[in-house]
Amino acid sequence: MKHYIKHHPWHIVEEGFDPHLNRVSESLFSIGNGRMGQRANFEETYSGEMHQGTYVAGVYYPDKTRVGWWKNGYPEYFAKVLNAPSWIGIHIKIAGKELDLATAKIENFRRVLDMKQGLLHRSFTATLPGGKKVAVDAKRFCSMADGEIGAIRYEVTPLNFSAKASIRLTVDADVVNKDSNYDEKFWEPVSEEAKSGRAIVTAQTKKTFFHVCTGMTYSISSGGKQDKVKPKVSKKPQYADNVVEVSLRKGTATTIEKYAVVLSSENHPKAKLTAVAAKKLEKALATGFDKLFANHVAVWSHKWDECDISIEGDIAAQQGIRFNIFQLMQTYTGEDERLNIGPKGFTGEKYGGSTYWDTEAYCLPFYLGTSDPKVARNLLVYRYKHLPKAIENARKLGFTEGAAFYPFVTMNGEECHNEWEITFEEIHRTSAMAYAMRDYIDYTGDRDYLVSHGLEVLIGISRFWTQRVNWSKEKNSYVILGVTGPNEYENNVNNNWYTNYLAAWTLRFTLESLDYVRKKDHKKYEALAKKLNFHDARETGTWKEIVAKMYYGKDEKRGILLQQDGFLDKELLTVNDLKPADRPINQKWSWDRILRSCFIKQADVLQGLYLFEQDFDQESIRRNFDFYEPMTVHESSLSPCVHAILASKLGYEAKAYEMYLRTARLDLDDYNNDTEDGCHITSMAGTWLSVVKGFGGMRVIDGMLHFHPFIPKQWNSYSFRLEFRGRVIKIQVTKDHVKTILEHGEPVEIVVNGSKKQLSTSSKG
Amino acid sequence: MKHYIKHHPWHIVEEGFDPHLNRVSESLFSIGNGRMGQRANFEETYSGEMHQGTYVAGVYYPDKTRVGWWKNGYPEYFAKVLNAPSWIGIHIKIAGKELDLATAKIENFRRVLDMKQGLLHRSFTATLPGGKKVAVDAKRFCSMADGEIGAIRYEVTPLNFSAKASIRLTVDADVVNKDSNYDEKFWEPVSEEAKSGRAIVTAQTKKTFFHVCTGMTYSISSGGKQDKVKPKVSKKPQYADNVVEVSLRKGTATTIEKYAVVLSSENHPKAKLTAVAAKKLEKALATGFDKLFANHVAVWSHKWDECDISIEGDIAAQQGIRFNIFQLMQTYTGEDERLNIGPKGFTGEKYGGSTYWDTEAYCLPFYLGTSDPKVARNLLVYRYKHLPKAIENARKLGFTEGAAFYPFVTMNGEECHNEWEITFEEIHRTSAMAYAMRDYIDYTGDRDYLVSHGLEVLIGISRFWTQRVNWSKEKNSYVILGVTGPNEYENNVNNNWYTNYLAAWTLRFTLESLDYVRKKDHKKYEALAKKLNFHDARETGTWKEIVAKMYYGKDEKRGILLQQDGFLDKELLTVNDLKPADRPINQKWSWDRILRSCFIKQADVLQGLYLFEQDFDQESIRRNFDFYEPMTVHESSLSPCVHAILASKLGYEAKAYEMYLRTARLDLDDYNNDTEDGCHITSMAGTWLSVVKGFGGMRVIDGMLHFHPFIPKQWNSYSFRLEFRGRVIKIQVTKDHVKTILEHGEPVEIVVNGSKKQLSTSSKG
Repeated sequence: MKHYIKHHPWHIVEEGFDPHLNRVSESLFSIGNGRMGQRANFEETYSGEMHQGTYVAGVYYPDKTRVGWWKNGYPEYFAKVLNAPSWIGIHIKIAGKELDLATAKIENFRRVLDMKQGLLHRSFTATLPGGKKVAVDAKRFCSMADGEIGAIRYEVTPLNFSAKASIRLTVDADVVNKDSNYDEKFWEPVSEEAKSGRAIVTAQTKKTFFHVCTGMTYSISSGGKQDKVKPKVSKKPQYADNVVEVSLRKGTATTIEKYAVVLSSENHPKAKLTAVAAKKLEKALATGFDKLFANHVAVWSHKWDECDISIEGDIAAQQGIRFNIFQLMQTYTGEDERLNIGPKGFTGEKYGGSTYWDTEAYCLPFYLGTSDPKVARNLLVYRYKHLPKAIENARKLGFTEGAAFYPFVTMNGEECHNEWEITFEEIHRTSAMAYAMRDYIDYTGDRDYLVSHGLEVLIGISRFWTQRVNWSKEKNSYVILGVTGPNEYENNVNNNWYTNYLAAWTLRFTLESLDYVRKKDHKKYEALAKKLNFHDARETGTWKEIVAKMYYGKDEKRGILLQQDGFLDKELLTVNDLKPADRPINQKWSWDRILRSCFIKQADVLQGLYLFEQDFDQESIRRNFDFYEPMTVHESSLSPCVHAILASKLGYEAKAYEMYLRTARLDLDDYNNDTEDGCHITSMAGTWLSVVKGFGGMRVIDGMLHFHPFIPKQWNSYSFRLEFRGRVIKIQVTKDHVKTILEHGEPVEIVVNGSKKQLSTSSKG
Repeated sequence: MKHYIKHHPWHIVEEGFDPHLNRVSESLFSIGNGRMGQRANFEETYSGEMHQGTYVAGVYYPDKTRVGWWKNGYPEYFAKVLNAPSWIGIHIKIAGKELDLATAKIENFRRVLDMKQGLLHRSFTATLPGGKKVAVDAKRFCSMADGEIGAIRYEVTPLNFSAKASIRLTVDADVVNKDSNYDEKFWEPVSEEAKSGRAIVTAQTKKTFFHVCTGMTYSISSGGKQDKVKPKVSKKPQYADNVVEVSLRKGTATTIEKYAVVLSSENHPKAKLTAVAAKKLEKALATGFDKLFANHVAVWSHKWDECDISIEGDIAAQQGIRFNIFQLMQTYTGEDERLNIGPKGFTGEKYGGSTYWDTEAYCLPFYLGTSDPKVARNLLVYRYKHLPKAIENARKLGFTEGAAFYPFVTMNGEECHNEWEITFEEIHRTSAMAYAMRDYIDYTGDRDYLVSHGLEVLIGISRFWTQRVNWSKEKNSYVILGVTGPNEYENNVNNNWYTNYLAAWTLRFTLESLDYVRKKDHKKYEALAKKLNFHDARETGTWKEIVAKMYYGKDEKRGILLQQDGFLDKELLTVNDLKPADRPINQKWSWDRILRSCFIKQADVLQGLYLFEQDFDQESIRRNFDFYEPMTVHESSLSPCVHAILASKLGYEAKAYEMYLRTARLDLDDYNNDTEDGCHITSMAGTWLSVVKGFGGMRVIDGMLHFHPFIPKQWNSYSFRLEFRGRVIKIQVTKDHVKTILEHGEPVEIVVNGSKKQLSTSSKG
């Protein structure tokens, strides 16, 4: 836990420079725009502790899998998120001395992330060895209006001297991953260009051969007057620069505006990269920093109008929730259906892979609620496009007939995780794809997605489950053996209730979807059946049989669902029985001890009750919550939000707020002492869900928005906005009332605390 | 499968040189003497495919553990068996041309391992590029009479020329492990000495700082006359040699006798290594090859007298069983209680670590039956000495109060394996130490081992089980959750019957042993109780409670014991249901598929019935055998022997013989296509057990030897010898009778087919 971030409703603020916190701040103050992103590294030379990080969406390296005991079906590689060529370098040498925060004396250091405007702003005064004192003010953004553009305004003002200075503006592709083995490098040079006023470097990734072309141009002015510069230019493999000599005058600001383009061969022909870069640079320079920034701010302004949550009376909570929303919005914009939401976004490279089931289970509802439906739809299409790889993945594990097994971690659809108990056994994730479709359809009403894409995926997944169950003579039921549920503190268990329920639900949903498609577009259905070699009667017959005879573990005495076979053989303790020294158990206990204990990492049975609450009565949910929550250690960042939502539903307001607190400032306060590796991007969606589905009690039932809000007693009021079927609806909850406002769009009927309510833009809720 | 080894009762024979088989032969023709060993690499230069391997017992390197997801309690390193400095090099250059089997034309190549004499003998004629033709005859042994001595007699005879030749005799510590990462080397130079007639190199292992001092001396003669040689000597770090110029005369043999010493700092002070080596070399040279060899053969002769098994009518079976006995005998002699039986012995470096539960469960009965009791006793003392590390190992996993958890793989007592499902969960191995004591006591009658060593170990192990069980309210019993049984095709299961039974048996055995020690030597008992802080009444009370209320899974309907909870939920198939293309399943199926299938890697319930057969009636054993054996794929080399023994007991003679065949020639015929990595040393004990306990029906009951033999119909007769309480007893079984002979020792009463029989050296059985 750290508490150095100053509280502010819209800003993340660091005051004073502590080199030991620098890597944490680099993560927290990261900026991005869905296509590229950048840790909050300094523009100038910094010889202290840091983790330089520039990331380009979709670019990865296949790092060879190394395990002690190879299991058949393991992927050959792990997709490493790559540190990409850096475009931010502005190296200042004053009278021959390098400006370097590690060697200068620093005062008035202030780093601010303005979340409203998506701007990183840093200022300080530095006294160089020898006594020359300069003030620096640096602003930076990655344009949300053009995902290939970044810009920096960097001002240096000599405070007690005038002198010559050299300014070296760089593009540098000689970068290394923090987690690379034996300092292996992953980029190879392709081309470099260094001209007066411009530098462009193209590098390619080893093995995957992605080309990334990074260019920069700039202007320099002093006291508001443009300098005519005659730079010295130079280049070497993977590097190009311009070095400009300027005369710094005491009290006068010299301003460098640096414009960068970052292009990927995923979006441009390789042969044209340099030409496109040159053209975009020219245009950016002509447009200028202020105008580029205004375009960028306009996008953010529109986004906040759709998705802001405001909290009165708790500034830390306000800052926390906006930070979560901000990070998610700059990680994924939904404009490119090939991209997804990496666990660290553009804030670090740990974990690797870009896509986990976090996307479907946590992020999708966030984007549904806060963005145009195409954003969520693109997340679905992403998985649709990966269907052939999911079928291939299933085949590698011995499944046949087009069964689809989605990977646990992926970049391009291939599995790239290799812990057998996860890779091969945490199979519930494949149905997260099905559930996401239902979520999307319920929220948007766009049922025709099933016709165009969805059914094909559902059939693949259902075929997987058909082969993955087996008939137990002993139980006279279908069983699912050898799985890991969402609670990864159990491995290789039998009849995990969540998995069994989700599997059967998937089959039911596929059967319903089949009916819908058959009726809606019979031709399409027939074409699909032919393509998939689908034996309707036989296959649906089997599915119905499995649905009818799936085994569900229960404890009749307690009236609860059983997380898995044999769960009650455990010593049934609660988290209160644990000594503080034992926590977190994943750092204190050996794995076998964790496995045989009753302690739960994250919602498992409760995950199912959260997803399928409409299938269970309130008292069943309460009994299960009362049984399982006290055993839950919440050692996954994805755990508390589900509990916050269920606790809210059950009227456990204090528990709901406690759970909310565990997610909202996870990174800002460096709760787990790991923010230096990057922020926990996907779990941030859970924070949003805690407020909207938890405190706000938002549900969509039969196409209608429902709310059942309460307000945590620590707050005076809170409000959130929802994008819903072409409308923006704002819900404001105070201590004594709930206000609902249609801010944009056609009139709509909603339900608040069980009562229907008509909203239109002219009425007040 | 390969079939290139010629059948012979006492020899392993390869005729003709096939470079592609060279690495397999290098393993098969390995020689050793319990202290050191050597793959059958060539003395002369060989530029073809090979795996050079010299090994020194007890010398290892701690290779850093690298895993994807670190689990608490994992060992920091894995003990790598190290390829040690080579002493065999005799490099021949004839008229400037290197003798190299990869470049010469080879005829009449013959490699013979004479198992009776422990001699590697190789001969061939080589035509060098240019046409010079030489005959070579090379003999080599590692002395069983002095474990630090190796000797080579190497004869070169020019067949069609006379010429000058240079002979380079080397000691070379610049060696590399085949399995090292990135060609990392594990040895550092300490000192080199090269004098006329002698070279000595000392090298030390990185991190562990073992010193190994390797020295050589030699004599050269031509046509039977000693040559006066004036060698050129040279040395460099980790290397020293003598180069001798000789005149080869057509038709005349030049004979090089090379003597080596290999000393370890485990046995000599580091500072004295070179001096000791020099002295031993001098003595070896003075003794001469023939006399050293005679001493060596005398030891083998004595060993064979104690342990030979002869088979009439099946020469392949005869060769197979002797090969197994030979390899075991040269791997472990029992003279040093710090050593153990590595899975590859001195034939390769794969797997690493020197000690698995194979030692206690498989090898110990072999050495009991074939060697002086001190050999088996040293195996027990080895574990006794590791008790503090076993306690430390348990503590790392959260156990307290002196609980002892023996490692799954070890070199010095520390755990050095890191697959959680094995390291943390295959816990039955810790009780293998208890069972080995019982085995030893039953066989030798030396119950006082409990007083001097055993009880202390038993209390530690029993304390482990006490903490490892938990009370299940649901089952109203003690249960053991989260284990892997001997059948490693199940991971993290609950109530593995074998583990539960073994745990409860251990507690019973500890209680009995306590009683014995208390009565036999009360002072010793009191001292021990004090040392261990042993709360007799409380602890034994808990043990009795656990013994009384341990849970054992059963299927009443089938009358069988349940391998684990939920086993009957599986699809119950037999191996006959598998397609040939699916086998071996560990190469064809993904791990989850293996885990959820019913297929069994090696005896599990049946392992328990084998170890505790006296607790079960014949029909119970039969029902379990009939249920489990058909599901068993025997994909562990340790599996068939247990089944051979049980099948013999049940009168399933054909099944017993089938199982025997699977082990006896496993390496000779390269059954699993992996002999090139080394031989499967520990499972070789199983082959011996199959004959003696299986076909011979040998048991020790109440201190008396029992036999219940049958003869496989493929054989005419077989006989084996047993070392038993100071006697050597030979049992000969033919088609129609059983002959028992006391070859050595006091008269003894034995039981054959239920009838008592008095044996004395003067009577015939």
